[in-house]
Amino acid sequence: MNGVNEESIPQIVTPIQVMFFDTDCAAMVHNLAYLRFIETARTLLAEQMGMNLRSMSEGGEFPIVVRTEIDYRSSAVLADRLEVHGRLEKMQRSRFWVALEIIRPEDGKLIVTCRQMLALIRMPGGKVMRMPVEWLEKYGHLR
Amino acid sequence: MNGVNEESIPQIVTPIQVMFFDTDCAAMVHNLAYLRFIETARTLLAEQMGMNLRSMSEGGEFPIVVRTEIDYRSSAVLADRLEVHGRLEKMQRSRFWVALEIIRPEDGKLIVTCRQMLALIRMPGGKVMRMPVEWLEKYGHLR
Amino acid sequence: MNGVNEESIPQIVTPIQVMFFDTDCAAMVHNLAYLRFIETARTLLAEQMGMNLRSMSEGGEFPIVVRTEIDYRSSAVLADRLEVHGRLEKMQRSRFWVALEIIRPEDGKLIVTCRQMLALIRMPGGKVMRMPVEWLEKYGHLR
Amino acid sequence: MNGVNEESIPQIVTPIQVMFFDTDCAAMVHNLAYLRFIETARTLLAEQMGMNLRSMSEGGEFPIVVRTEIDYRSSAVLADRLEVHGRLEKMQRSRFWVALEIIRPEDGKLIVTCRQMLALIRMPGGKVMRMPVEWLEKYGHLR
Repeated sequence: MNGVNEESIPQIVTPIQVMFFDTDCAAMVHNLAYLRFIETARTLLAEQMGMNLRSMSEGGEFPIVVRTEIDYRSSAVLADRLEVHGRLEKMQRSRFWVALEIIRPEDGKLIVTCRQMLALIRMPGGKVMRMPVEWLEKYGHLR
Repeated sequence: MNGVNEESIPQIVTPIQVMFFDTDCAAMVHNLAYLRFIETARTLLAEQMGMNLRSMSEGGEFPIVVRTEIDYRSSAVLADRLEVHGRLEKMQRSRFWVALEIIRPEDGKLIVTCRQMLALIRMPGGKVMRMPVEWLEKYGHLR
Repeated sequence: MNGVNEESIPQIVTPIQVMFFDTDCAAMVHNLAYLRFIETARTLLAEQMGMNLRSMSEGGEFPIVVRTEIDYRSSAVLADRLEVHGRLEKMQRSRFWVALEIIRPEDGKLIVTCRQMLALIRMPGGKVMRMPVEWLEKYGHLR
Repeated sequence: MNGVNEESIPQIVTPIQVMFFDTDCAAMVHNLAYLRFIETARTLLAEQMGMNLRSMSEGGEFPIVVRTEIDYRSSAVLADRLEVHGRLEKMQRSRFWVALEIIRPEDGKLIVTCRQMLALIRMPGGKVMRMPVEWLEKYGHLR
Protein backbone atom coordinates (compact mmCIF):
# COMPACT_ATOMS: atom_id res chain seq x y z
CA MET A 1 0.00 0.00 0.00
CA ASN A 2 1.50 3.29 -1.03
CA GLY A 3 -1.41 5.36 0.13
CA VAL A 4 -2.04 6.83 -3.32
CA ASN A 5 -5.73 7.02 -3.94
CA GLU A 6 -6.88 6.68 -7.53
CA GLU A 7 -9.58 9.21 -6.79
CA SER A 8 -7.01 11.86 -5.96
CA ILE A 9 -5.83 11.98 -9.58
CA PRO A 10 -7.95 14.58 -11.37
CA GLN A 11 -9.34 13.15 -14.58
CA ILE A 12 -11.84 14.22 -17.19
CA VAL A 13 -13.57 12.89 -20.29
CA THR A 14 -15.06 15.40 -22.72
CA PRO A 15 -17.07 14.40 -25.79
CA ILE A 16 -16.50 16.11 -29.14
CA GLN A 17 -18.27 15.78 -32.47
CA VAL A 18 -16.21 16.69 -35.53
CA MET A 19 -17.62 19.70 -37.39
CA PHE A 20 -16.87 20.95 -40.91
CA PHE A 21 -14.58 23.67 -39.54
CA ASP A 22 -12.48 20.98 -37.83
CA THR A 23 -11.64 19.28 -41.13
CA ASP A 24 -9.50 20.37 -44.06
CA CYS A 25 -9.40 19.54 -47.76
CA ALA A 26 -7.53 16.29 -47.09
CA ALA A 27 -10.94 15.27 -45.63
CA MET A 28 -9.43 14.70 -42.18
CA VAL A 29 -9.46 16.67 -38.96
CA HIS A 30 -6.78 19.39 -39.11
CA ASN A 31 -3.94 19.19 -36.61
CA LEU A 32 -4.92 22.55 -35.06
CA ALA A 33 -8.46 21.36 -34.38
CA TYR A 34 -7.28 18.51 -32.14
CA LEU A 35 -5.39 21.05 -30.07
CA ARG A 36 -8.56 23.11 -29.69
CA PHE A 37 -10.36 19.97 -28.44
CA ILE A 38 -7.52 19.54 -25.96
CA GLU A 39 -7.75 23.16 -24.79
CA THR A 40 -11.37 22.64 -23.85
CA ALA A 41 -10.73 19.37 -22.02
CA ARG A 42 -7.78 20.81 -20.13
CA THR A 43 -9.75 23.88 -19.10
CA LEU A 44 -12.53 21.71 -17.70
CA LEU A 45 -9.94 19.57 -15.93
CA ALA A 46 -8.49 22.70 -14.33
CA GLU A 47 -11.95 23.71 -13.14
CA GLN A 48 -12.40 20.28 -11.62
CA MET A 49 -9.11 20.72 -9.77
CA GLY A 50 -10.56 23.87 -8.23
CA MET A 51 -9.37 26.59 -10.60
CA ASN A 52 -12.18 29.07 -11.01
CA LEU A 53 -11.13 30.57 -14.31
CA ARG A 54 -13.34 33.60 -14.13
CA SER A 55 -12.33 34.67 -10.65
CA MET A 56 -8.69 33.87 -11.40
CA SER A 57 -8.72 35.93 -14.59
CA GLU A 58 -10.46 38.79 -12.79
CA GLY A 59 -7.60 38.64 -10.30
CA GLY A 60 -4.99 38.65 -13.07
CA GLU A 61 -3.97 34.99 -12.64
CA PHE A 62 -3.81 32.77 -15.70
CA PRO A 63 -2.73 29.20 -16.41
CA ILE A 64 -0.50 29.15 -19.49
CA VAL A 65 0.82 26.34 -21.64
CA VAL A 66 4.63 26.28 -21.55
CA ARG A 67 5.24 23.17 -23.68
CA THR A 68 3.14 20.85 -25.82
CA GLU A 69 4.13 17.45 -27.21
CA ILE A 70 1.50 15.95 -29.49
CA ASP A 71 1.49 12.81 -31.62
CA TYR A 72 -1.06 12.39 -34.36
CA ARG A 73 -1.63 8.63 -34.55
CA SER A 74 -4.73 8.08 -36.68
CA SER A 75 -7.08 10.43 -38.39
CA ALA A 76 -10.66 11.37 -37.62
CA VAL A 77 -13.23 12.59 -40.13
CA LEU A 78 -16.38 14.70 -40.34
CA ALA A 79 -19.10 13.78 -37.84
CA ASP A 80 -16.88 11.42 -35.84
CA ARG A 81 -17.73 11.31 -32.17
CA LEU A 82 -14.52 11.53 -30.22
CA GLU A 83 -13.58 11.63 -26.56
CA VAL A 84 -10.77 13.61 -24.98
CA HIS A 85 -9.42 11.87 -21.90
CA GLY A 86 -7.31 14.12 -19.72
CA ARG A 87 -5.61 13.69 -16.38
CA LEU A 88 -3.16 15.49 -14.14
CA GLU A 89 0.17 13.72 -14.55
CA LYS A 90 2.63 15.62 -12.40
CA MET A 91 2.42 18.50 -9.91
CA GLN A 92 5.48 20.53 -9.04
CA ARG A 93 6.04 23.77 -7.17
CA SER A 94 5.75 26.04 -10.14
CA ARG A 95 4.42 23.86 -12.94
CA PHE A 96 2.25 20.89 -13.69
CA TRP A 97 1.89 18.35 -16.49
CA VAL A 98 -1.32 17.02 -17.99
CA ALA A 99 -1.64 13.97 -20.24
CA LEU A 100 -4.41 13.80 -22.81
CA GLU A 101 -5.63 11.24 -25.30
CA ILE A 102 -8.22 11.58 -28.01
CA ILE A 103 -9.97 8.35 -28.85
CA ARG A 104 -12.85 7.31 -31.10
CA PRO A 105 -15.02 5.01 -28.97
CA GLU A 106 -16.87 3.61 -31.99
CA ASP A 107 -13.85 1.59 -33.10
CA GLY A 108 -11.56 2.09 -30.13
CA LYS A 109 -8.94 3.91 -32.25
CA LEU A 110 -6.38 6.08 -30.51
CA ILE A 111 -6.29 9.29 -32.53
CA VAL A 112 -3.99 11.61 -30.61
CA THR A 113 -1.73 11.52 -27.54
CA CYS A 114 -0.55 14.73 -25.97
CA ARG A 115 1.36 16.04 -22.94
CA GLN A 116 1.35 19.66 -21.87
CA MET A 117 3.32 21.50 -19.21
CA LEU A 118 1.59 24.48 -17.64
CA ALA A 119 2.48 27.29 -15.29
CA LEU A 120 0.44 29.90 -13.44
CA ILE A 121 1.33 33.50 -14.15
CA ARG A 122 0.22 36.86 -12.84
CA MET A 123 -0.65 39.60 -15.33
CA PRO A 124 0.40 42.23 -16.09
CA GLY A 125 4.04 41.33 -16.01
CA GLY A 126 3.81 37.60 -16.56
CA LYS A 127 5.56 36.58 -13.33
CA VAL A 128 5.41 32.80 -12.71
CA MET A 129 3.56 31.97 -9.47
CA ARG A 130 3.89 29.03 -7.13
CA MET A 131 1.14 26.45 -7.29
CA PRO A 132 -1.60 26.89 -4.68
CA VAL A 133 -0.66 25.16 -1.40
CA GLU A 134 -3.89 23.22 -1.60
CA TRP A 135 -2.82 21.69 -4.92
CA LEU A 136 0.63 20.78 -3.64
CA GLU A 137 -0.99 19.00 -0.69
CA LYS A 138 -3.63 17.26 -2.72
CA TYR A 139 -1.60 16.33 -5.80
CA GLY A 140 1.98 16.48 -4.54
CA HIS A 141 2.22 12.69 -4.76
CA LEU A 142 2.14 13.11 -8.54
CA ARG A 143 5.77 13.94 -9.14
CA MET B 1 -16.19 69.99 -57.57
CA ASN B 2 -17.41 68.98 -54.14
CA GLY B 3 -14.01 69.00 -52.60
CA VAL B 4 -14.11 65.28 -51.88
CA ASN B 5 -10.71 63.86 -52.55
CA GLU B 6 -10.44 60.21 -53.54
CA GLU B 7 -7.41 60.06 -51.31
CA SER B 8 -9.50 60.94 -48.30
CA ILE B 9 -11.32 57.60 -48.50
CA PRO B 10 -9.21 55.12 -46.57
CA GLN B 11 -8.68 51.96 -48.59
CA ILE B 12 -6.59 48.87 -48.32
CA VAL B 13 -5.69 45.76 -50.30
CA THR B 14 -4.30 42.79 -48.40
CA PRO B 15 -3.05 39.62 -50.11
CA ILE B 16 -3.94 36.18 -48.72
CA GLN B 17 -2.90 32.69 -49.76
CA VAL B 18 -5.30 29.91 -48.85
CA MET B 19 -3.79 27.43 -46.38
CA PHE B 20 -4.97 23.92 -45.43
CA PHE B 21 -6.51 25.24 -42.21
CA ASP B 22 -8.67 27.63 -44.25
CA THR B 23 -10.35 24.77 -46.14
CA ASP B 24 -12.79 22.10 -45.03
CA CYS B 25 -13.68 18.62 -46.26
CA ALA B 26 -15.88 20.06 -49.01
CA ALA B 27 -12.47 21.09 -50.46
CA MET B 28 -13.41 24.78 -50.34
CA VAL B 29 -12.48 27.65 -48.05
CA HIS B 30 -14.67 27.51 -44.93
CA ASN B 31 -17.02 30.43 -44.31
CA LEU B 32 -15.26 31.30 -41.03
CA ALA B 33 -11.88 31.57 -42.76
CA TYR B 34 -13.07 34.37 -45.06
CA LEU B 35 -14.12 36.32 -41.98
CA ARG B 36 -10.66 35.88 -40.51
CA PHE B 37 -9.19 37.28 -43.76
CA ILE B 38 -11.56 40.21 -43.37
CA GLU B 39 -10.56 40.80 -39.75
CA THR B 40 -6.96 41.20 -40.80
CA ALA B 41 -7.75 43.57 -43.66
CA ARG B 42 -10.04 45.69 -41.49
CA THR B 43 -7.45 45.92 -38.74
CA LEU B 44 -4.84 47.16 -41.20
CA LEU B 45 -7.38 49.61 -42.61
CA ALA B 46 -7.99 50.95 -39.10
CA GLU B 47 -4.27 51.41 -38.61
CA GLN B 48 -4.08 53.32 -41.86
CA MET B 49 -6.88 55.58 -40.60
CA GLY B 50 -4.70 56.41 -37.63
CA MET B 51 -5.85 53.88 -35.02
CA ASN B 52 -2.82 52.68 -33.15
CA LEU B 53 -4.20 49.40 -31.90
CA ARG B 54 -1.54 48.79 -29.32
CA SER B 55 -1.72 52.18 -27.68
CA MET B 56 -5.53 52.15 -27.88
CA SER B 57 -5.74 48.73 -26.27
CA GLU B 58 -3.27 49.77 -23.57
CA GLY B 59 -5.60 52.70 -22.91
CA GLY B 60 -8.65 50.41 -22.75
CA GLU B 61 -10.14 51.52 -26.08
CA PHE B 62 -11.20 48.88 -28.58
CA PRO B 63 -12.93 48.88 -31.95
CA ILE B 64 -15.67 46.24 -31.96
CA VAL B 65 -17.80 44.76 -34.72
CA VAL B 66 -21.48 45.47 -34.09
CA ARG B 67 -22.93 43.94 -37.26
CA THR B 68 -21.66 41.86 -40.16
CA GLU B 69 -23.41 41.16 -43.46
CA ILE B 70 -21.52 38.74 -45.66
CA ASP B 71 -22.38 37.11 -48.98
CA TYR B 72 -20.47 34.08 -50.17
CA ARG B 73 -20.55 34.37 -53.97
CA SER B 74 -18.01 31.87 -55.32
CA SER B 75 -15.66 29.48 -53.64
CA ALA B 76 -11.91 29.53 -53.29
CA VAL B 77 -9.67 26.49 -52.86
CA LEU B 78 -6.33 25.47 -51.38
CA ALA B 79 -3.38 27.61 -52.48
CA ASP B 80 -5.55 30.27 -54.16
CA ARG B 81 -4.06 33.73 -53.99
CA LEU B 82 -6.80 36.13 -52.95
CA GLU B 83 -7.02 39.84 -52.25
CA VAL B 84 -9.16 41.52 -49.64
CA HIS B 85 -10.16 45.01 -50.73
CA GLY B 86 -11.46 47.14 -47.89
CA ARG B 87 -12.57 50.75 -47.60
CA LEU B 88 -14.26 53.04 -45.14
CA GLU B 89 -17.83 53.43 -46.32
CA LYS B 90 -19.53 55.65 -43.76
CA MET B 91 -18.41 57.62 -40.71
CA GLN B 92 -20.92 58.66 -38.06
CA ARG B 93 -20.61 60.11 -34.59
CA SER B 94 -20.53 56.82 -32.76
CA ARG B 95 -20.07 54.20 -35.46
CA PHE B 96 -18.59 53.56 -38.85
CA TRP B 97 -19.14 51.13 -41.72
CA VAL B 98 -16.51 49.36 -43.77
CA ALA B 99 -17.08 47.56 -47.08
CA LEU B 100 -14.90 44.63 -48.06
CA GLU B 101 -14.57 42.38 -51.07
CA ILE B 102 -12.49 39.26 -51.51
CA ILE B 103 -11.45 38.64 -55.08
CA ARG B 104 -9.23 36.13 -56.88
CA PRO B 105 -7.11 38.21 -59.27
CA GLU B 106 -6.07 35.16 -61.33
CA ASP B 107 -9.55 34.85 -62.87
CA GLY B 108 -11.14 38.06 -61.63
CA LYS B 109 -13.76 36.15 -59.61
CA LEU B 110 -15.61 37.93 -56.84
CA ILE B 111 -15.55 35.50 -53.92
CA VAL B 112 -17.07 37.40 -51.01
CA THR B 113 -18.71 40.76 -50.33
CA CYS B 114 -19.08 42.04 -46.80
CA ARG B 115 -20.18 45.10 -44.84
CA GLN B 116 -19.41 45.62 -41.17
CA MET B 117 -20.54 48.25 -38.71
CA LEU B 118 -18.10 49.06 -35.93
CA ALA B 119 -18.09 51.09 -32.74
CA LEU B 120 -15.37 52.17 -30.35
CA ILE B 121 -15.79 51.10 -26.76
CA ARG B 122 -13.95 51.71 -23.53
CA MET B 123 -13.13 48.76 -21.29
CA PRO B 124 -13.87 47.79 -18.63
CA GLY B 125 -17.55 48.60 -18.86
CA GLY B 126 -18.00 48.55 -22.60
CA LYS B 127 -19.27 52.13 -22.91
CA VAL B 128 -19.62 53.27 -26.54
CA MET B 129 -17.36 56.24 -27.30
CA ARG B 130 -17.70 59.02 -29.85
CA MET B 131 -15.47 58.79 -32.87
CA PRO B 132 -12.26 60.82 -32.62
CA VAL B 133 -12.84 64.43 -33.75
CA GLU B 134 -10.04 64.00 -36.25
CA TRP B 135 -11.93 61.17 -37.93
CA LEU B 136 -15.17 63.10 -38.06
CA GLU B 137 -13.36 65.98 -39.74
CA LYS B 138 -11.43 63.84 -42.15
CA TYR B 139 -14.11 61.30 -43.06
CA GLY B 140 -17.33 63.08 -42.13
CA HIS B 141 -18.18 63.46 -45.83
CA LEU B 142 -18.74 59.68 -45.87
CA ARG B 143 -22.26 59.59 -44.48
CA MET C 1 -56.26 26.91 -37.23
CA ASN C 2 -53.78 26.75 -40.02
CA GLY C 3 -52.66 23.23 -39.37
CA VAL C 4 -49.11 24.29 -38.68
CA ASN C 5 -47.73 22.21 -35.91
CA GLU C 6 -45.14 23.79 -33.64
CA GLU C 7 -43.35 20.47 -33.61
CA SER C 8 -42.81 20.61 -37.34
CA ILE C 9 -40.42 23.55 -36.95
CA PRO C 10 -36.97 22.11 -36.37
CA GLN C 11 -35.33 23.75 -33.38
CA ILE C 12 -32.25 23.20 -31.32
CA VAL C 13 -30.56 24.49 -28.19
CA THR C 14 -26.83 23.88 -27.78
CA PRO C 15 -24.89 24.83 -24.65
CA ILE C 16 -21.47 26.48 -24.89
CA GLN C 17 -18.95 27.47 -22.26
CA VAL C 18 -16.59 30.29 -23.19
CA MET C 19 -12.96 29.17 -23.33
CA PHE C 20 -9.76 31.27 -23.37
CA PHE C 21 -9.43 30.80 -27.14
CA ASP C 22 -12.88 32.33 -27.60
CA THR C 23 -11.83 35.62 -26.01
CA ASP C 24 -9.46 38.36 -27.15
CA CYS C 25 -7.40 41.01 -25.40
CA ALA C 26 -10.44 43.25 -25.01
CA ALA C 27 -11.45 40.54 -22.49
CA MET C 28 -14.60 39.71 -24.43
CA VAL C 29 -15.59 36.89 -26.76
CA HIS C 30 -14.22 37.59 -30.24
CA ASN C 31 -16.74 38.08 -33.05
CA LEU C 32 -15.39 35.02 -34.94
CA ALA C 33 -15.92 32.77 -31.93
CA TYR C 34 -19.66 33.44 -31.84
CA LEU C 35 -19.84 32.33 -35.47
CA ARG C 36 -18.07 29.10 -34.59
CA PHE C 37 -20.68 28.51 -31.87
CA ILE C 38 -23.34 29.10 -34.50
CA GLU C 39 -21.71 26.68 -36.95
CA THR C 40 -21.95 23.92 -34.38
CA ALA C 41 -25.58 24.64 -33.51
CA ARG C 42 -26.59 24.84 -37.17
CA THR C 43 -24.84 21.58 -37.98
CA LEU C 44 -26.71 19.81 -35.18
CA LEU C 45 -29.97 21.41 -36.37
CA ALA C 46 -29.31 20.05 -39.86
CA GLU C 47 -28.75 16.58 -38.43
CA GLN C 48 -32.04 16.85 -36.56
CA MET C 49 -33.75 17.73 -39.85
CA GLY C 50 -32.43 14.47 -41.26
CA MET C 51 -29.17 15.52 -42.91
CA ASN C 52 -26.63 12.83 -42.26
CA LEU C 53 -23.50 14.90 -42.73
CA ARG C 54 -21.14 11.99 -43.06
CA SER C 55 -23.12 10.09 -45.67
CA MET C 56 -23.89 13.32 -47.52
CA SER C 57 -20.23 14.33 -47.60
CA GLU C 58 -19.22 10.85 -48.73
CA GLY C 59 -21.71 11.31 -51.55
CA GLY C 60 -20.29 14.72 -52.43
CA GLU C 61 -23.24 16.75 -51.11
CA PHE C 62 -22.58 19.66 -48.79
CA PRO C 63 -24.69 22.35 -47.15
CA ILE C 64 -23.01 25.73 -47.61
CA VAL C 65 -23.63 29.13 -46.08
CA VAL C 66 -24.54 31.66 -48.79
CA ARG C 67 -25.24 34.69 -46.58
CA THR C 68 -24.82 35.58 -42.92
CA GLU C 69 -26.30 38.56 -41.08
CA ILE C 70 -25.13 38.82 -37.51
CA ASP C 71 -25.70 41.46 -34.84
CA TYR C 72 -23.50 41.57 -31.79
CA ARG C 73 -25.77 42.95 -29.04
CA SER C 74 -23.96 42.41 -25.75
CA SER C 75 -20.66 40.83 -24.88
CA ALA C 76 -19.83 37.57 -23.17
CA VAL C 77 -16.69 36.85 -21.18
CA LEU C 78 -14.45 33.96 -20.15
CA ALA C 79 -16.28 31.03 -18.54
CA ASP C 80 -19.75 32.33 -19.39
CA ARG C 81 -22.26 29.60 -20.03
CA LEU C 82 -24.19 30.46 -23.16
CA GLU C 83 -26.94 28.82 -25.19
CA VAL C 84 -27.32 28.90 -28.94
CA HIS C 85 -30.97 28.68 -29.94
CA GLY C 86 -31.45 27.80 -33.59
CA ARG C 87 -34.48 27.12 -35.74
CA LEU C 88 -35.38 26.64 -39.36
CA GLU C 89 -36.98 29.88 -40.52
CA LYS C 90 -37.76 29.40 -44.19
CA MET C 91 -37.58 26.50 -46.66
CA GLN C 92 -37.47 27.15 -50.39
CA ARG C 93 -36.76 24.99 -53.41
CA SER C 94 -33.06 25.62 -53.52
CA ARG C 95 -32.24 27.35 -50.26
CA PHE C 96 -33.26 27.66 -46.65
CA TRP C 97 -32.87 30.19 -43.85
CA VAL C 98 -32.02 29.53 -40.24
CA ALA C 99 -32.38 31.98 -37.36
CA LEU C 100 -30.09 31.77 -34.36
CA GLU C 101 -29.76 33.56 -31.05
CA ILE C 102 -27.06 33.31 -28.45
CA ILE C 103 -28.25 34.05 -24.95
CA ARG C 104 -26.73 33.93 -21.47
CA PRO C 105 -29.33 32.20 -19.31
CA GLU C 106 -27.71 33.38 -16.05
CA ASP C 107 -28.91 36.95 -16.59
CA GLY C 108 -31.18 36.49 -19.59
CA LYS C 109 -29.01 38.70 -21.80
CA LEU C 110 -29.33 38.44 -25.56
CA ILE C 111 -25.76 38.32 -26.84
CA VAL C 112 -26.07 37.71 -30.57
CA THR C 113 -28.78 37.39 -33.21
CA CYS C 114 -28.02 35.84 -36.57
CA ARG C 115 -29.70 34.74 -39.79
CA GLN C 116 -28.05 32.51 -42.35
CA MET C 117 -29.12 31.42 -45.81
CA LEU C 118 -27.90 28.03 -46.93
CA ALA C 119 -27.86 25.99 -50.11
CA LEU C 120 -27.00 22.39 -50.90
CA ILE C 121 -24.27 21.86 -53.44
CA ARG C 122 -22.72 18.88 -55.14
CA MET C 123 -18.95 18.60 -55.31
CA PRO C 124 -16.86 18.62 -57.37
CA GLY C 125 -18.32 21.40 -59.45
CA GLY C 126 -20.36 23.20 -56.83
CA LYS C 127 -23.71 22.87 -58.61
CA VAL C 128 -26.63 24.03 -56.45
CA MET C 129 -29.11 21.20 -55.78
CA ARG C 130 -32.83 21.27 -55.05
CA MET C 131 -33.84 20.63 -51.49
CA PRO C 132 -34.82 17.04 -50.72
CA VAL C 133 -38.52 16.41 -51.53
CA GLU C 134 -38.97 15.22 -47.97
CA TRP C 135 -37.86 18.59 -46.63
CA LEU C 136 -40.12 20.52 -48.98
CA GLU C 137 -43.07 18.42 -47.82
CA LYS C 138 -42.23 18.65 -44.16
CA TYR C 139 -41.09 22.25 -43.94
CA GLY C 140 -42.65 23.83 -47.04
CA HIS C 141 -45.08 25.76 -44.83
CA LEU C 142 -42.10 27.83 -43.67
CA ARG C 143 -41.90 30.28 -46.52
CA MET D 1 34.98 21.01 -45.91
CA ASN D 2 32.15 18.57 -45.56
CA GLY D 3 30.54 19.40 -48.86
CA VAL D 4 27.31 20.56 -47.25
CA ASN D 5 26.17 23.69 -48.93
CA GLU D 6 24.23 26.16 -46.78
CA GLU D 7 22.09 26.93 -49.77
CA SER D 8 20.87 23.38 -49.99
CA ILE D 9 19.04 23.71 -46.67
CA PRO D 10 15.55 25.02 -47.42
CA GLN D 11 14.77 27.97 -45.18
CA ILE D 12 12.05 30.54 -44.91
CA VAL D 13 11.18 33.68 -42.98
CA THR D 14 7.54 34.75 -42.85
CA PRO D 15 6.38 37.98 -41.21
CA ILE D 16 3.28 38.05 -39.00
CA GLN D 17 1.46 40.87 -37.27
CA VAL D 18 -0.55 39.93 -34.19
CA MET D 19 -4.28 40.51 -34.64
CA PHE D 20 -7.05 40.68 -32.03
CA PHE D 21 -8.15 37.13 -32.86
CA ASP D 22 -4.63 35.88 -32.05
CA THR D 23 -4.85 37.14 -28.46
CA ASP D 24 -6.91 35.99 -25.50
CA CYS D 25 -8.18 37.64 -22.33
CA ALA D 26 -4.80 37.20 -20.65
CA ALA D 27 -3.81 39.91 -23.19
CA MET D 28 -1.21 37.63 -24.79
CA VAL D 29 -1.13 35.62 -28.00
CA HIS D 30 -2.99 32.33 -27.46
CA ASN D 31 -0.96 29.12 -27.78
CA LEU D 32 -3.09 27.94 -30.74
CA ALA D 33 -2.39 31.12 -32.68
CA TYR D 34 1.37 30.51 -32.70
CA LEU D 35 0.71 27.11 -34.24
CA ARG D 36 -1.36 28.72 -36.97
CA PHE D 37 1.57 31.06 -37.71
CA ILE D 38 3.77 27.97 -37.91
CA GLU D 39 1.36 26.20 -40.28
CA THR D 40 1.63 29.07 -42.72
CA ALA D 41 5.42 29.24 -42.56
CA ARG D 42 5.77 25.48 -42.98
CA THR D 43 3.43 25.45 -45.95
CA LEU D 44 5.46 28.14 -47.68
CA LEU D 45 8.64 26.23 -46.84
CA ALA D 46 7.17 23.12 -48.48
CA GLU D 47 6.34 25.12 -51.58
CA GLN D 48 9.91 26.39 -51.70
CA MET D 49 11.10 22.77 -51.52
CA GLY D 50 9.06 22.08 -54.63
CA MET D 51 5.77 20.84 -53.21
CA ASN D 52 2.99 22.27 -55.30
CA LEU D 53 0.19 21.99 -52.79
CA ARG D 54 -2.62 22.47 -55.23
CA SER D 55 -1.47 19.89 -57.74
CA MET D 56 -0.54 17.49 -54.95
CA SER D 57 -3.94 17.83 -53.30
CA GLU D 58 -5.68 17.40 -56.64
CA GLY D 59 -3.70 14.17 -56.99
CA GLY D 60 -4.70 13.04 -53.50
CA GLU D 61 -1.28 13.57 -51.90
CA PHE D 62 -1.03 15.52 -48.67
CA PRO D 63 1.74 16.40 -46.23
CA ILE D 64 0.56 15.72 -42.68
CA VAL D 65 1.96 16.61 -39.30
CA VAL D 66 2.76 13.45 -37.32
CA ARG D 67 4.31 15.05 -34.23
CA THR D 68 4.71 18.56 -32.85
CA GLU D 69 6.95 19.70 -29.99
CA ILE D 70 6.51 23.34 -29.11
CA ASP D 71 7.97 25.47 -26.33
CA TYR D 72 6.39 28.78 -25.44
CA ARG D 73 9.30 30.90 -24.21
CA SER D 74 8.06 34.48 -24.01
CA SER D 75 4.75 36.08 -24.85
CA ALA D 76 3.75 38.36 -27.67
CA VAL D 77 0.94 40.91 -27.58
CA LEU D 78 -1.49 42.69 -29.87
CA ALA D 79 0.10 44.40 -32.88
CA ASP D 80 3.53 42.82 -32.34
CA ARG D 81 5.42 42.21 -35.56
CA LEU D 82 6.86 38.72 -35.41
CA GLU D 83 8.88 36.55 -37.74
CA VAL D 84 8.61 32.80 -38.18
CA HIS D 85 11.93 31.29 -39.17
CA GLY D 86 11.60 27.77 -40.55
CA ARG D 87 14.05 25.31 -42.02
CA LEU D 88 14.19 21.69 -43.07
CA GLU D 89 16.05 19.83 -40.33
CA LYS D 90 16.08 16.20 -41.37
CA MET D 91 14.99 14.24 -44.44
CA GLN D 92 14.33 10.53 -44.23
CA ARG D 93 12.76 8.01 -46.57
CA SER D 94 9.24 8.39 -45.30
CA ARG D 95 9.32 11.45 -43.09
CA PHE D 96 10.99 14.77 -42.54
CA TRP D 97 11.51 17.19 -39.67
CA VAL D 98 11.23 20.95 -39.74
CA ALA D 99 12.49 23.34 -37.07
CA LEU D 100 10.77 26.65 -36.52
CA GLU D 101 11.33 29.68 -34.33
CA ILE D 102 9.13 32.68 -33.77
CA ILE D 103 11.03 35.80 -32.85
CA ARG D 104 10.18 39.47 -32.27
CA PRO D 105 12.81 41.43 -34.20
CA GLU D 106 12.03 44.69 -32.37
CA ASP D 107 13.65 43.45 -29.16
CA GLY D 108 15.25 40.23 -30.38
CA LYS D 109 13.08 38.09 -28.08
CA LEU D 110 12.69 34.41 -28.83
CA ILE D 111 8.97 33.73 -28.45
CA VAL D 112 8.49 30.12 -29.55
CA THR D 113 10.61 27.17 -30.65
CA CYS D 114 9.02 24.24 -32.42
CA ARG D 115 9.89 20.99 -34.19
CA GLN D 116 7.47 19.06 -36.36
CA MET D 117 7.72 15.67 -38.02
CA LEU D 118 5.78 15.27 -41.23
CA ALA D 119 4.87 12.48 -43.60
CA LEU D 120 3.32 12.38 -47.05
CA ILE D 121 0.13 10.40 -47.37
CA ARG D 122 -2.15 9.39 -50.20
CA MET D 123 -5.89 9.88 -49.81
CA PRO D 124 -8.29 8.18 -49.65
CA GLY D 125 -6.82 5.53 -47.44
CA GLY D 126 -4.07 7.50 -45.77
CA LYS D 127 -1.18 5.29 -46.90
CA VAL D 128 2.25 6.77 -46.05
CA MET D 129 4.31 7.44 -49.17
CA ARG D 130 8.06 7.55 -49.68
CA MET D 131 9.58 10.98 -50.07
CA PRO D 132 10.11 12.10 -53.67
CA VAL D 133 13.45 10.83 -55.03
CA GLU D 134 14.34 14.40 -55.87
CA TRP D 135 14.04 15.39 -52.20
CA LEU D 136 16.11 12.46 -51.01
CA GLU D 137 18.85 13.43 -53.44
CA LYS D 138 18.73 17.09 -52.66
CA TYR D 139 18.23 16.95 -48.90
CA GLY D 140 19.44 13.47 -48.00
CA HIS D 141 22.51 14.97 -46.28
CA LEU D 142 20.11 16.25 -43.60
CA ARG D 143 19.78 13.10 -41.51
